[in-house]
Amino acid sequence: MPDEFDEFADADLPAYVGLPSFHKLPWCPDDASLEASRAQVAIVGAPYDEGTSARPGARFGPRAIREASYLSGDIWSIPLQVDVLKVLRVVDAGDAPVVPSRPDRAHRVIQEKVRRVASMGAIPVVLGGDHSITFPSAAAVSEVHRPRKVGMVHFDAHADTAAELWGALASHGAPMRRLIEEGWIAGRNFVQVGLRGYWPDAATFRWMGEQGLRWHTMAEIEERGAEAVIADAIREALDGPDAIYLSIDIDVLDPSVAPGTGTPEPGGLHARELLRAVRQIVGRVDLVGMDVVEVSPPYDHAEITARVANRCVLEALAALAAKASRP
Amino acid sequence: MPDEFDEFADADLPAYVGLPSFHKLPWCPDDASLEASRAQVAIVGAPYDEGTSARPGARFGPRAIREASYLSGDIWSIPLQVDVLKVLRVVDAGDAPVVPSRPDRAHRVIQEKVRRVASMGAIPVVLGGDHSITFPSAAAVSEVHRPRKVGMVHFDAHADTAAELWGALASHGAPMRRLIEEGWIAGRNFVQVGLRGYWPDAATFRWMGEQGLRWHTMAEIEERGAEAVIADAIREALDGPDAIYLSIDIDVLDPSVAPGTGTPEPGGLHARELLRAVRQIVGRVDLVGMDVVEVSPPYDHAEITARVANRCVLEALAALAAKASRP
Amino acid sequence: MPDEFDEFADADLPAYVGLPSFHKLPWCPDDASLEASRAQVAIVGAPYDEGTSARPGARFGPRAIREASYLSGDIWSIPLQVDVLKVLRVVDAGDAPVVPSRPDRAHRVIQEKVRRVASMGAIPVVLGGDHSITFPSAAAVSEVHRPRKVGMVHFDAHADTAAELWGALASHGAPMRRLIEEGWIAGRNFVQVGLRGYWPDAATFRWMGEQGLRWHTMAEIEERGAEAVIADAIREALDGPDAIYLSIDIDVLDPSVAPGTGTPEPGGLHARELLRAVRQIVGRVDLVGMDVVEVSPPYDHAEITARVANRCVLEALAALAAKASRP
Amino acid sequence: MPDEFDEFADADLPAYVGLPSFHKLPWCPDDASLEASRAQVAIVGAPYDEGTSARPGARFGPRAIREASYLSGDIWSIPLQVDVLKVLRVVDAGDAPVVPSRPDRAHRVIQEKVRRVASMGAIPVVLGGDHSITFPSAAAVSEVHRPRKVGMVHFDAHADTAAELWGALASHGAPMRRLIEEGWIAGRNFVQVGLRGYWPDAATFRWMGEQGLRWHTMAEIEERGAEAVIADAIREALDGPDAIYLSIDIDVLDPSVAPGTGTPEPGGLHARELLRAVRQIVGRVDLVGMDVVEVSPPYDHAEITARVANRCVLEALAALAAKASRP
Amino acid sequence: MPDEFDEFADADLPAYVGLPSFHKLPWCPDDASLEASRAQVAIVGAPYDEGTSARPGARFGPRAIREASYLSGDIWSIPLQVDVLKVLRVVDAGDAPVVPSRPDRAHRVIQEKVRRVASMGAIPVVLGGDHSITFPSAAAVSEVHRPRKVGMVHFDAHADTAAELWGALASHGAPMRRLIEEGWIAGRNFVQVGLRGYWPDAATFRWMGEQGLRWHTMAEIEERGAEAVIADAIREALDGPDAIYLSIDIDVLDPSVAPGTGTPEPGGLHARELLRAVRQIVGRVDLVGMDVVEVSPPYDHAEITARVANRCVLEALAALAAKASRP
Amino acid sequence: MPDEFDEFADADLPAYVGLPSFHKLPWCPDDASLEASRAQVAIVGAPYDEGTSARPGARFGPRAIREASYLSGDIWSIPLQVDVLKVLRVVDAGDAPVVPSRPDRAHRVIQEKVRRVASMGAIPVVLGGDHSITFPSAAAVSEVHRPRKVGMVHFDAHADTAAELWGALASHGAPMRRLIEEGWIAGRNFVQVGLRGYWPDAATFRWMGEQGLRWHTMAEIEERGAEAVIADAIREALDGPDAIYLSIDIDVLDPSVAPGTGTPEPGGLHARELLRAVRQIVGRVDLVGMDVVEVSPPYDHAEITARVANRCVLEALAALAAKASRP
Repeated sequence: MPDEFDEFADADLPAYVGLPSFHKLPWCPDDASLEASRAQVAIVGAPYDEGTSARPGARFGPRAIREASYLSGDIWSIPLQVDVLKVLRVVDAGDAPVVPSRPDRAHRVIQEKVRRVASMGAIPVVLGGDHSITFPSAAAVSEVHRPRKVGMVHFDAHADTAAELWGALASHGAPMRRLIEEGWIAGRNFVQVGLRGYWPDAATFRWMGEQGLRWHTMAEIEERGAEAVIADAIREALDGPDAIYLSIDIDVLDPSVAPGTGTPEPGGLHARELLRAVRQIVGRVDLVGMDVVEVSPPYDHAEITARVANRCVLEALAALAAKASRP
Repeated sequence: MPDEFDEFADADLPAYVGLPSFHKLPWCPDDASLEASRAQVAIVGAPYDEGTSARPGARFGPRAIREASYLSGDIWSIPLQVDVLKVLRVVDAGDAPVVPSRPDRAHRVIQEKVRRVASMGAIPVVLGGDHSITFPSAAAVSEVHRPRKVGMVHFDAHADTAAELWGALASHGAPMRRLIEEGWIAGRNFVQVGLRGYWPDAATFRWMGEQGLRWHTMAEIEERGAEAVIADAIREALDGPDAIYLSIDIDVLDPSVAPGTGTPEPGGLHARELLRAVRQIVGRVDLVGMDVVEVSPPYDHAEITARVANRCVLEALAALAAKASRP
Repeated sequence: MPDEFDEFADADLPAYVGLPSFHKLPWCPDDASLEASRAQVAIVGAPYDEGTSARPGARFGPRAIREASYLSGDIWSIPLQVDVLKVLRVVDAGDAPVVPSRPDRAHRVIQEKVRRVASMGAIPVVLGGDHSITFPSAAAVSEVHRPRKVGMVHFDAHADTAAELWGALASHGAPMRRLIEEGWIAGRNFVQVGLRGYWPDAATFRWMGEQGLRWHTMAEIEERGAEAVIADAIREALDGPDAIYLSIDIDVLDPSVAPGTGTPEPGGLHARELLRAVRQIVGRVDLVGMDVVEVSPPYDHAEITARVANRCVLEALAALAAKASRP
Repeated sequence: MPDEFDEFADADLPAYVGLPSFHKLPWCPDDASLEASRAQVAIVGAPYDEGTSARPGARFGPRAIREASYLSGDIWSIPLQVDVLKVLRVVDAGDAPVVPSRPDRAHRVIQEKVRRVASMGAIPVVLGGDHSITFPSAAAVSEVHRPRKVGMVHFDAHADTAAELWGALASHGAPMRRLIEEGWIAGRNFVQVGLRGYWPDAATFRWMGEQGLRWHTMAEIEERGAEAVIADAIREALDGPDAIYLSIDIDVLDPSVAPGTGTPEPGGLHARELLRAVRQIVGRVDLVGMDVVEVSPPYDHAEITARVANRCVLEALAALAAKASRP
Repeated sequence: MPDEFDEFADADLPAYVGLPSFHKLPWCPDDASLEASRAQVAIVGAPYDEGTSARPGARFGPRAIREASYLSGDIWSIPLQVDVLKVLRVVDAGDAPVVPSRPDRAHRVIQEKVRRVASMGAIPVVLGGDHSITFPSAAAVSEVHRPRKVGMVHFDAHADTAAELWGALASHGAPMRRLIEEGWIAGRNFVQVGLRGYWPDAATFRWMGEQGLRWHTMAEIEERGAEAVIADAIREALDGPDAIYLSIDIDVLDPSVAPGTGTPEPGGLHARELLRAVRQIVGRVDLVGMDVVEVSPPYDHAEITARVANRCVLEALAALAAKASRP
Repeated sequence: MPDEFDEFADADLPAYVGLPSFHKLPWCPDDASLEASRAQVAIVGAPYDEGTSARPGARFGPRAIREASYLSGDIWSIPLQVDVLKVLRVVDAGDAPVVPSRPDRAHRVIQEKVRRVASMGAIPVVLGGDHSITFPSAAAVSEVHRPRKVGMVHFDAHADTAAELWGALASHGAPMRRLIEEGWIAGRNFVQVGLRGYWPDAATFRWMGEQGLRWHTMAEIEERGAEAVIADAIREALDGPDAIYLSIDIDVLDPSVAPGTGTPEPGGLHARELLRAVRQIVGRVDLVGMDVVEVSPPYDHAEITARVANRCVLEALAALAAKASRP
């Protein structure tokens, strides 16, 4: 009986049994355990949503994304033919110590958390949280990797380049502007994919053009197909920066695929287009940071949004592992 | 502080603050305010669902579609590059004064409401309600525009050309038949897109052929692609009628995209196919009326159905604005 | 037909037809229309939830509460035997012009909005929003009515008397403390009903005792019954203040009755206990302001939370009408 | 293995296996099978909701109520200590052959279906459908039992005695008026329990008084308790009529208990109060017909409304069985 | 009135009226009625989910799939131009007599049920239930058709070829392995479509290769398109076996299309790709059995998963009818 | 900034930030960490639901109950006036290592897990899982405390004393029978509260009487009130056994309070009755073990069921702390 009791390692038990870290990975919430883990990639939660301009709830995103899987233990990537976690050391570094109703502090502790992870040599994979958290997260990554130039590949329905939203600078509609204006990432090193709908305004798009940002709308994808557009995006991402931060706003997906989000914009990507793009991009660029944001569990159903967010992370891990296992 | 209080115009406040008219547009429920507005387009609610043969609830469609947006104030169409509401005067004309359990009266007051809007020179954009409301709505538009010939472009999983459903003439399965048989729109001026499944029966399809209706099934779209089929539909829509009424049954979309509807039929259009088609069609034809019907909020989730219905309207507005701003 | 079209006044059409103001009451969002209405009571929306420490979403409360009714036109209170709106002039004054991610500004514009309503002689009935909005709302009421002493009857699972929550002063856990400490309402003029669970801590309860607050826990209600406890609460409310502000945190109800809220605490009041208490209290005290807060629609089901919140308002209106119609 | 295959009779298999008749009872949809069954009680579905004035969906009530149980086979009533189905022959007579969008026909076929069941000597237990179906159902029962006088015990938040609703006579707000005015049941033989809220108006209540109706409001129950009020209701029900039709509008329950309904009114009965009342009433009066109406599955959650409706029927069956088994 | 009462045959009444067999087809739960029906196809329910490794609930799949339609009576296939039920005799043979918490017995009675149906000459169309039921079902079909060789076309996100899952042989992750290892279907006669994600492991895929299984991943479909891949799959299905068992795990669809399932894997097929594939495959091969499994209603929304599962069956019926009506 | 980063201990951060153990308590999943903790009480998860006879899903109960709270850090019991966690050392011992589709193994590892916890001197508080887990759990507790006699106080809608269900011994309808028949707890030391409905049958109740079980039905509570009945139950619990195992099937609550369960039976306890009973019972008896079972998250809404289950545990902890702090 003791044998049967210990028949499986904790990490190999079903996903719903035991500690709900991301994929039941080792839980390393502090510097000591993280350092000891010698992780190459570390999951970080950024449970914050006070930058939201519409439907909130993304503060519960990190926990939901962590739990949204039926997988545990070793995993074999079917498209990439790699035994992901045998190749890559990945841990869950826990959450940034966010508290409610203190927006500036929230951004500061997220920045500090990501800085610590990146400083230890792990690629931070940040689970949002609303998109405002990309400002502290990408700033921290950019700072740690200086003087290398970090570029941004950004999947989103919205450009998030507003100077402010109703006067709020820390809005989830403005992080990309702040990254550019504060000098963390140059405008010409931005590549955006999935823009559609009615926001931001013409003046903002003009500013984006002046800064050298490159973007691909859904209308372009409708005409040329996702495959061709992603190929261009990868080319552009490799043209300029030394390394890439990948930011995935889950609302780049169609609301049918990702209903659990704050500002859903109909007409987005299919899940398989996004997951394929993640594999292709991470497989080609030098990834130094990543986030998946705007998963709002109160609006989700049957966890479908959290699950596709979870798979964005797994696809990135698989692509990293595939790269690492190339001879 | 009074300054801060008045920092934003009501129409520019967030979508969830203040009067929930469509896109926070001016509320002109009566003839006087509508006339004064000199609107070019007017939203009209048709909160009626007693023509439904399966899952009801579309009576709550108009309110849901109005509220299903995070946008307010000026909007910039990303695919069409136009500042929509700076070019086009659009108002919300409120609802037809429907009351429950009086089906004939409901159809009459919807017809009267649409007639008033169209008579004042505004294009009515009717938010259903079940599809039976297309009969009074399109009849009113056809009447107002006489002697011009009005044609119909009709997106739907179902042809809605039954002579009756279980003996009911006013069913949501019969409006197209009644428009033809009562002489409002000629059969040969009908173009239907998205038909699939198992209804109506062979005899009805034969009748449709005899009347000269043209239709495009999902099977055709599977084979030829939406782009090619929509191009054909536009060609057909321009071949005969002087002006077009566009009727969008939201169940033309796949149930994953539009679960909040009464008779969902698996295998439908993706959101981006429909939104693109709306832009293309409205951009090419002379639009004199439009409806978006069969949004049933009790079956919706996270408002995804109402939101894509809302965007069908915005895409049409954007296409109208783009046309209006062409030199 | 025009007759049929105008068969019913807009306010008498079904709740789901036409303008979704509270109970389809006149919409008076600005000073001019409000003044012209000579309203005795005015509904005010406070769509703000950034003081929330757990599940957000209360920003959508005002709209949900307004729409959560099948009633329209004249209404007859069955328990109080009064034709409510024939006796009382009530309007909907719209929302305070809140914008996201600017917490201090939100509190200021709510305070200004309530001040304007109260200054014109209408009793403000504020629809939250999270409970932090009671600070600006009750402060405004207290200010307008000076030098009369305003007391507070407060239904809630939580005392909301924390000095701060995780360092945040503007938290929804602290409004009562701020009202006391800033001198708007004296501690001894507070009566709280429904406290239960595990918060706040012993030190805070000690402070409450020192300030002279009076409170009634659910444990007391379990032992003595709601009827006896409410009778005591009314006695206490009449002992000291000249007039009363009534604040109803919907989480005073059991989570089965009010699931759509941010910090549900099992073991609360039944709906009929609360509605009866509202009738009794408003019927006995001099009401100068009221709020119903913490309705979070994303967590609601079938609108049951929004509906009971709506009825808290109607019961208060009925009690005011009954008082007004007493000879 | 064939033995294992036939280990259990179909009726004894789990509720979710096999034919979903009510409690897996014999399905006797036609006169022949019903007659052959010599049923003492027969379940009848009335899948109709076009009399609804607010949220529709009750057309799906019969099917939902039938399936909302984990029980099958023999059942032992714990409070009444009787082996219900060993004492009582009960069958499921299927649905009245309703079709959509033909309101008058719907009422006629419901009346005919109930008439057939009652004529064969079975007590019809009708599953609604909206409350308008009580008009044809109770009329049929009254007709079959002439010249005995049938009375009505009616649980509801609403009196349903309107002369019309927005001009509609067949509304779910008017069936009781029509039963009285058409002479099927005398006003003085009506006992109503659970009235609350704001409807109907004073004039209607006056008319009710003039007709001799007796009613008990929730306010009375709040003051005197359900036990005492039900005792009075039974006394009144026995005072006049020879036999009783019991009509249960599920909205007599609090919306927390019965969210899946069209016009929920906060402040209603607890489930145990209603189930106890059903046992007591059916145990005391001579029951000749019964309905449970206004279960609207699209608004239900986890079937809780359908399940309590199902139990209203089972409690009535148990009380009938207990009476039948008294020496 | 009796005429009106009998205006429609039971099978032609609306889907929500009357007996909820599949498509209101004749209910033939026992050998005698099934034999008498001379059915060519028979629906069979397998309400079992104890082989599930993650989210359970598929035991309620058969009932949900049966009810998830607005159709009744005769149906006309729009893509295949055939009057399906006029050509094909189809009945509903009811459920296998499964009981809870006896896994081995469940598999045995499912096998017996399918064997009886197949022995009588009807093609069994089995509604799961979790995927473990394909083992008894396909084994029964294979046995009945001996010595013909039965092959398997298998749509799924997962290969389901594990030797065991956490030591459980009867897991829903292992049925295909058991069919092969017990000799019911040869590995080389397997064609799998839709594999993706991270399971099973490399060793299992190696074993699959050794056994001669052929499979098509979503990655292949992303690259080559569904049309080309399905054409290959059909070619492979015709290369070897004499007849085909078609097993559709609903999770082959993207979770947006089929949220109501136990182990959703993002990145799957669109509904129209699957429905088209079913038509093509059934139209080309000699179908001897079929199942649609892993529909878990507690995780479904607005029945969208159950409805697409229902349509998988209808598309197969239509393809069978089209074949049968070819000259 | 490092200071701000470490401003709060992990356990004091908001409930949604960081490790989701029960109440953010120390996570001690193995013997070593548990022993080192010197815990007086230990939470144990039993994520198993294959004993369920109707709606499954309780395997996800432990995780849901752990996360269903907005509290963290120190907590002050308002009714009991005790600083719970300052008085009592409580940890979360993690889950028993259950795997799917191996029912007997699941029961064995649960028994072993509880045995280990109890052997170390901690009171196990087991989060189910379906009610079958009470058999291994209470057996382990009884074994560890021998030769003391352990009694059972059991809150439930159902007696769970069936000899078997459809032939299954390990069913969730049979654990109490097995505890008695295998000699772990004597029948006369059982006290059951909350029985209602139609199950089990008369013969089983007779057997219960012969074994000396004592039970209190909801009918008794309706007549005498919960306060009086609980007082009797406590008296009976103290009459015989030396120590008490408290088993709470969440379905003892009314389905409105606990919709998220497998076999909801309308007419149950209110939340405040149960929470009060837990405080009273734990405050009076010598508690040696406890479980809260049958929370099925897929059927829950807004976590209301999981939250009341969470509070059953907190109330027990508070009562233990209150006892411990008595002078």
